[in-house]
Amino acid sequence: MTAPRVPDVFDLIDRIDPLIDARDFPAIVEAISPASVDEVASLLKRLTVTEGAVVFRLLTKDRAVRVFEQLSAGVQSDLVHALKDAEVAEIFADLDPDDRVELLDELPATLAPRLLRGLSDKERRLTAAVLGYPKGSVGRRMTPEYISAREDSTAGEALERVRLRIDDAEAIYTLPVLDDSRHVVGVIGLKDLMRARPEDRVADLMRRPTVATAYADAEEAARTCASAGYLAIPIVDNESRLVGMLTIDDAMRVLQHEESEDAARQGGVEPLRRPYLATSIRSLASTRIVWLLVLAVGATLTVQVLEVFEATLEEVTVLALFVPLLIGTGGNTGNQAATTITRALALGDVRPRDVWRVLARELGVGLSLGTLLGLLGGTITSLVYEPRIGLVIGLTLLAVCAMAAAIGGVMPMIARALRVDPAVFSNPFISTFVDATGLIVYFVIARAVLGI
Amino acid sequence: MTAPRVPDVFDLIDRIDPLIDARDFPAIVEAISPASVDEVASLLKRLTVTEGAVVFRLLTKDRAVRVFEQLSAGVQSDLVHALKDAEVAEIFADLDPDDRVELLDELPATLAPRLLRGLSDKERRLTAAVLGYPKGSVGRRMTPEYISAREDSTAGEALERVRLRIDDAEAIYTLPVLDDSRHVVGVIGLKDLMRARPEDRVADLMRRPTVATAYADAEEAARTCASAGYLAIPIVDNESRLVGMLTIDDAMRVLQHEESEDAARQGGVEPLRRPYLATSIRSLASTRIVWLLVLAVGATLTVQVLEVFEATLEEVTVLALFVPLLIGTGGNTGNQAATTITRALALGDVRPRDVWRVLARELGVGLSLGTLLGLLGGTITSLVYEPRIGLVIGLTLLAVCAMAAAIGGVMPMIARALRVDPAVFSNPFISTFVDATGLIVYFVIARAVLGI
Repeated sequence: MTAPRVPDVFDLIDRIDPLIDARDFPAIVEAISPASVDEVASLLKRLTVTEGAVVFRLLTKDRAVRVFEQLSAGVQSDLVHALKDAEVAEIFADLDPDDRVELLDELPATLAPRLLRGLSDKERRLTAAVLGYPKGSVGRRMTPEYISAREDSTAGEALERVRLRIDDAEAIYTLPVLDDSRHVVGVIGLKDLMRARPEDRVADLMRRPTVATAYADAEEAARTCASAGYLAIPIVDNESRLVGMLTIDDAMRVLQHEESEDAARQGGVEPLRRPYLATSIRSLASTRIVWLLVLAVGATLTVQVLEVFEATLEEVTVLALFVPLLIGTGGNTGNQAATTITRALALGDVRPRDVWRVLARELGVGLSLGTLLGLLGGTITSLVYEPRIGLVIGLTLLAVCAMAAAIGGVMPMIARALRVDPAVFSNPFISTFVDATGLIVYFVIARAVLGI
Repeated sequence: MTAPRVPDVFDLIDRIDPLIDARDFPAIVEAISPASVDEVASLLKRLTVTEGAVVFRLLTKDRAVRVFEQLSAGVQSDLVHALKDAEVAEIFADLDPDDRVELLDELPATLAPRLLRGLSDKERRLTAAVLGYPKGSVGRRMTPEYISAREDSTAGEALERVRLRIDDAEAIYTLPVLDDSRHVVGVIGLKDLMRARPEDRVADLMRRPTVATAYADAEEAARTCASAGYLAIPIVDNESRLVGMLTIDDAMRVLQHEESEDAARQGGVEPLRRPYLATSIRSLASTRIVWLLVLAVGATLTVQVLEVFEATLEEVTVLALFVPLLIGTGGNTGNQAATTITRALALGDVRPRDVWRVLARELGVGLSLGTLLGLLGGTITSLVYEPRIGLVIGLTLLAVCAMAAAIGGVMPMIARALRVDPAVFSNPFISTFVDATGLIVYFVIARAVLGI
């Protein structure tokens, strides 16, 4: 039990693989019974869809629902396709409304109405409330099954209300405090209610609320909840009236998905639906080929630029030696700026309207870096080759660093202003863009300095 | 209250900046009083250290401690330096032991003993327990102030124990269940205890525990807690005995720090200590210069490689035109592979010992991508230039893609095996490395095909 968790899952796979092949169901049940819910979920993600369905069917019903809740929507939808309709309907009815909606988004449109029809009236109504918000909004990820407290009640009354409603609620550890018109006027932790004297007034115990509107971006709301370390934040309508709660576990799911997507996009790949080793080589290649082709087509620009300057190159072949160094440095500087600004946008540290401030700062950073590299590179090149070549290299490094930092910093801002994911202007994209412009700068400077 | 949160903080800064300059304390108090704790924390991060200290002093004591807890350790330590010793001692005493230790790690060694001396015996003992674990381990991030339940007790008894100990505990929503020797045999949510009948046995209500040892990597344990959506996981010693709980808010802090670090490193920059706009141009440049210099030095390899093949270049100048395209494509393919594998390592989807599997898969992906790009690039080049040049370009694209994917995939694995952060082999690093090798491949193929 004390071993680190990750190896456990791989050990479990090694033990369970032959059991599945042999269809030895009792042995499978025995193998997974000591595993916790998250370990079983981790196992299912790593098995093939058919193998996963075999293991899933062997779980007790209660465990099955808990395991299912922990799978990503992609893996859930694969599993749903491998299970029988009756099995799916049973799990579907036991999910929380927000988890249900997340799954529906992944399923084919024909399946969704059939599943919804199988729900009780109450569950269908709760699900419909969540389904009413646009995709990507926090309204889709909130739970409508919360317990609220009234501003004018006492701690004892609020606790009694928790006890009465506990069976129907998903979120109970953070209670939104409401006034007569259902406006959120505060929040209070269950712990604070339990610590208070029964006659203490909720209004005196509550703290100021951090809320998000149901139409707000799910990632932004999730980050607010998670980085403040709240167990849940109230979600309100446009009139500040409570409509649901975003719980920390749902916030975590949103963030983990977004972080994986950002990390992938920044490297110029699409995120994987399943763990790396459970993804086929064909799927891996398909997450990369589109970007690689786009970038290769973009890179033909560099061929054209060099063709324009071919005569210069033939005259002074030594200029060709520095091409990879110069465009490489430009690409690196651009990547550094883009990485910093993309993260700052994700954390809400920079807003689209700060674009001019960012441009000015990145130009400043690029000029500082370029001056240093230019002096260094220029001097060394002067000594090894000749002073005029050194001057060309020094000036080009200065110009390319300043330009690359400015472009790299502003690109993610433009993306955000256009309402596309800033990480789409990935590092490879910026490198390619900076390559072509860097070459033009290089040859213009070379011609001027060398007088050709 | 319904507006999205991020603009609020910036509005608050705009309103508060002149008030701080005017030293108009009552107006500052009024401006921040409707803000929630996380909004004030967000404000403090974005002010200068001196301005932050002014605002911080105006908070009520209870709010001050809550705000302080939400700041990153870097910002906390800046603030501590700006406050008076007595003020620091007061806040320090009110922090949870794990938060205290996180702050101590950031403070100069001379300050730590002074602060520890100011604590009560009990608090000092609790802090010492956490301080005993190595830096980077989850033992440093756990809270020793938890409430446990006994396996052989009833739900009613367990709830009574929660009520009695609630004032001293940080983690109360997830209770570890212990046997007679303090081994963790299960966990139970406070909600499940409250829903149960008082006479129900804890042993029947609890679920299988997911635990981590106190010496385990903090990031790994935090990811286990967060991705399973647990509010806390038990932390045990090497004999499986409970020593503390890792709560979700502390897990979130660990993960947010690691994600920021990974995102930064992958772009070849060091993470920022404060929000982007609150960081000086000088500090921004200093987070980038070291990597940029290292990469520029690495890139001089490409100059040397090209020098070796200078005669070939002079003979067939057209070869120079494709240098940026070829090394760019190599860099992109390498980045894609590195990004995918770095994320897979962070998520625990790939272990160091899978290195051969990763190598084989990435070679497969690289060969598929290379075949496609090679056929396309070779054909187009044949038509625009001449067939022999087309053959050189096609073959080089094939070879470079296969090589770059293999190198990009294996590099993060090597880093992990050497116990350094896989993100240190950043995308710029891999590009630079692949550039030099790609050029050698290019000219070797060109010489062979063109017979020079």
